[in-house]
Amino acid sequence: MSLLVVGSVGIDTIETPFGRVTDVLGGSSTYIAIAASYFVTPIKLVGVVGGDFPKEYFDFLESRDIDLEGLQVIKSGKTFRWGGRYLYDLNTRDTLFTDLNVFEHFNPVIPESYRKTTYVCLGNIDPVLQRRVLEQIERPRLVVGDTMNFWIKGKNAELRETLKLMDVLVINEAEARQLTNEPNLIKAARTIMMLGPRVVIIKKGEHGALLVTESTIFVAPAYPLENINDPTGAGDAFAGGFIGWIAKMDDFSDESLKRAVIHGSTLASFCVERFSLERFKDLTYLEILDRFREFRELSKFDEAITV
Amino acid sequence: MSLLVVGSVGIDTIETPFGRVTDVLGGSSTYIAIAASYFVTPIKLVGVVGGDFPKEYFDFLESRDIDLEGLQVIKSGKTFRWGGRYLYDLNTRDTLFTDLNVFEHFNPVIPESYRKTTYVCLGNIDPVLQRRVLEQIERPRLVVGDTMNFWIKGKNAELRETLKLMDVLVINEAEARQLTNEPNLIKAARTIMMLGPRVVIIKKGEHGALLVTESTIFVAPAYPLENINDPTGAGDAFAGGFIGWIAKMDDFSDESLKRAVIHGSTLASFCVERFSLERFKDLTYLEILDRFREFRELSKFDEAITV
Repeated sequence: MSLLVVGSVGIDTIETPFGRVTDVLGGSSTYIAIAASYFVTPIKLVGVVGGDFPKEYFDFLESRDIDLEGLQVIKSGKTFRWGGRYLYDLNTRDTLFTDLNVFEHFNPVIPESYRKTTYVCLGNIDPVLQRRVLEQIERPRLVVGDTMNFWIKGKNAELRETLKLMDVLVINEAEARQLTNEPNLIKAARTIMMLGPRVVIIKKGEHGALLVTESTIFVAPAYPLENINDPTGAGDAFAGGFIGWIAKMDDFSDESLKRAVIHGSTLASFCVERFSLERFKDLTYLEILDRFREFRELSKFDEAITV
Repeated sequence: MSLLVVGSVGIDTIETPFGRVTDVLGGSSTYIAIAASYFVTPIKLVGVVGGDFPKEYFDFLESRDIDLEGLQVIKSGKTFRWGGRYLYDLNTRDTLFTDLNVFEHFNPVIPESYRKTTYVCLGNIDPVLQRRVLEQIERPRLVVGDTMNFWIKGKNAELRETLKLMDVLVINEAEARQLTNEPNLIKAARTIMMLGPRVVIIKKGEHGALLVTESTIFVAPAYPLENINDPTGAGDAFAGGFIGWIAKMDDFSDESLKRAVIHGSTLASFCVERFSLERFKDLTYLEILDRFREFRELSKFDEAITV
């Protein structure tokens, strides 16, 4: 099966209580594509960078078998840059700067060779652009999308139009509440399902994830990491692991969706171990399988024979 | 096996977005004892009330086979009263009033018939009083305790002394972080284990609970309730379900502790369905067994045959 990923490609500066890195590879589509590349290749990437995008980052993406035909390079422009600082508990972050640069006028153009893609993952970009991507693809089998508070507030009507075209919405806890005005997460998920997506996955960071479909509710734990260096991209790595697994298996039954959520959680847990995408430089599929199995042990319990 | 529970017994006034109740039964030991009473009886209750404590509340406690010999009644005094208001998302609450009344000079005296108790649950009271209870009991097999921000801040040294005597600490997420100055919950649990308890259970409210022992980590989901009326006492009902199960089975292996955490979660999930302790007026053991099984389905997933 084939997977197309659209989203930002950026250069990040990140500060956490455990260190600081400058000009590292970032962006939602980057994290999604690299996480998904462990399950299905090549990944068709759609995005935009400037003439300053380092050769080593192109090389790294290609080393993960990511097809860059859809990555526009605007030689005269600069790549999207973002700077953020995480506070002591890693749950709160301050944005230090956002320089949209070439991303400001991004117009996703889907190459001819990408148009028959079966699976699509819409990273967190303007919902109008997300829709424009879908309009260029011939009936995909499954569309997974993400969004954020900025669009929920600033482009609510447009987002609602795009939601109608999504099969699966992957959204974080605070944003699910914001989108629906509903504090109870199960009710929030059910409200979102009335807006279009038939599957809702709520990412809860250190508390794991919640999958809600018409016929099931599944609670996935987070992996109990003692050393988290950088939470950047964890949500995107989750989405990538999720859609990568679904695309690999070509099965979206409830049971398969549950496994996909655990694969998403697995990729997210590796992502945060090091800064930027560093962990993916040596992460192997065998390590992913091992951690998937560890996830089973984490939440498994048996019934006792009661007296 | 026998179980002794000590803590507050009170009369509550509670406001939530879903209603308001005045002068209802409350208190940490009440919730613990009633939840535990589904697994082991009689429960030996230690606490204090005033002459105003309604007969119907005595009757309700006795109907759950709770032994009230250790419940001091100070005829000339008034029962501890607490008022609280929960905000829109039920995660934040304002205390409207706290009238300690007879609870201010509470001195737990353990009746002779209670002294050979095998299991002890120390509800959230002054750590000095928790220790005074333990001093009057002949070598219990397992001591479970709770505490709160008020004691972590105001009686830190005393709390640390009492922690040395606890086998299991049941504590909420924010308080685990506060006690240890450690934002990472797994590290916080390990730090607490160096203070005395060999088992730490971190309650995460709507996100479930985390069990950490020397040899295991277990992540328990919360039951995905769509209608929560009143979160009061959920943490105490959790502790009661937990210790009740342990006392029933007389087994504190890792596997038994995991099941006990799920039983705690089960009792907490019933507790919040109605105001005060109302849900326990008709809750049956069969309903508990059914929900325990539902918990298994919530977090269960299988490995797929990968290609």
